Amino acid sequence: MPNRPVAPLPPVPAFDGAFLDRLTDLFLWRRDVRRFRDAPLADAVVDELLSLACLAPSVGNSQPWRFVKVKDRAARARIRASFESCNRRALENYEGERAKLYATLKLSGLDRAPVQIAVFAENDPAEGRGLGRATMPETIGYSVAMAVHTLWIAARARGVGVGWVSILDPAEVAKALDAPAAWTLVGYLCVGWPEEEHADPELERHGWQDRLDPRRFIFDK
Amino acid sequence: MPNRPVAPLPPVPAFDGAFLDRLTDLFLWRRDVRRFRDAPLADAVVDELLSLACLAPSVGNSQPWRFVKVKDRAARARIRASFESCNRRALENYEGERAKLYATLKLSGLDRAPVQIAVFAENDPAEGRGLGRATMPETIGYSVAMAVHTLWIAARARGVGVGWVSILDPAEVAKALDAPAAWTLVGYLCVGWPEEEHADPELERHGWQDRLDPRRFIFDK
Repeated sequence: MPNRPVAPLPPVPAFDGAFLDRLTDLFLWRRDVRRFRDAPLADAVVDELLSLACLAPSVGNSQPWRFVKVKDRAARARIRASFESCNRRALENYEGERAKLYATLKLSGLDRAPVQIAVFAENDPAEGRGLGRATMPETIGYSVAMAVHTLWIAARARGVGVGWVSILDPAEVAKALDAPAAWTLVGYLCVGWPEEEHADPELERHGWQDRLDPRRFIFDK
Repeated sequence: MPNRPVAPLPPVPAFDGAFLDRLTDLFLWRRDVRRFRDAPLADAVVDELLSLACLAPSVGNSQPWRFVKVKDRAARARIRASFESCNRRALENYEGERAKLYATLKLSGLDRAPVQIAVFAENDPAEGRGLGRATMPETIGYSVAMAVHTLWIAARARGVGVGWVSILDPAEVAKALDAPAAWTLVGYLCVGWPEEEHADPELERHGWQDRLDPRRFIFDK
């Protein structure tokens, strides 16, 4: 079936028990980081992380992820202003103790993250020729989310923190970055060296939302 | 800031160079598996994978993933029929050599996968109290996609294959499983022991779509 010469396969890796334990540690210790140290992150590390992200699965192998490394100060300022405005509006949805608690939460690292990456989905990529997405076009966005997750755990394994900011007006972010009309914002990432390490989610630690027993989410049919 | 007693933290794990190399192997060798061996997969393994999936990041810690282990034969048959019907219709979108190639591709493992899991998103979970998703409600689906990706790589590390089937009518799958109206299908997973191991995507190997240089997908602003 191959229509081109078959390259010799590398040996199939075996992952031992020690690796599996460390992989579980990695899942446990991945955090949404919003508190960054005031230290630069080498470009080479960022590019390595982005290359690994591109090994994520994608519908029809369409590779619809588009990463924009945002260095421009005016663009960053505009995106941070969008966060602040959306966050003020979000606060209005809560009342009483909840509103007080919301106001104390730190919900982004836009103030200090040395590296910021806007992640977009190309809505109708030529790559993949539409395979697998005729009935579920949302799989394009899911593919990009899996690329972000790949970057996230690869970063954590290197001691690098990642925070996903979603309290944003996607249209405003796209405008700030002159993104093509065919792109949809999936997320905006803050990346850098974290100030702290935790095994529990920040929103759990600060009393917003506990992590629940997985058995609540598993059903039989 | 914590509003409850702080548990002693476990020691922060360090991930060494050998681990990083194996993690890269894991990303490289994860495949969308459509060819399964005719061998059962222990329930305990499936439940371990689902528990690990629940360590994925989620917007506002909303944990919106809902996993349905599909064992019912009638439900499986109905879902397989949906795949076959959607796949026939998808074929009509291609012409000439492309159509011939499409017809030869094996696009799901529904015929033999011993374990099948329908993955849904709860669209408006109480958990997380809406935090982080007011302007980007699609982050609910992205959270579920990251849980699937977590399960996928945890499975591959154990030698277990996972295939994500998206050539389905989501409404038909929801009906076959009596899913609540507030749930949206994110993906349908085939899980089992793979017949083959490959470092290259099946769609690349069969000449449908190559993996491209990551630099094509990285931009500066």
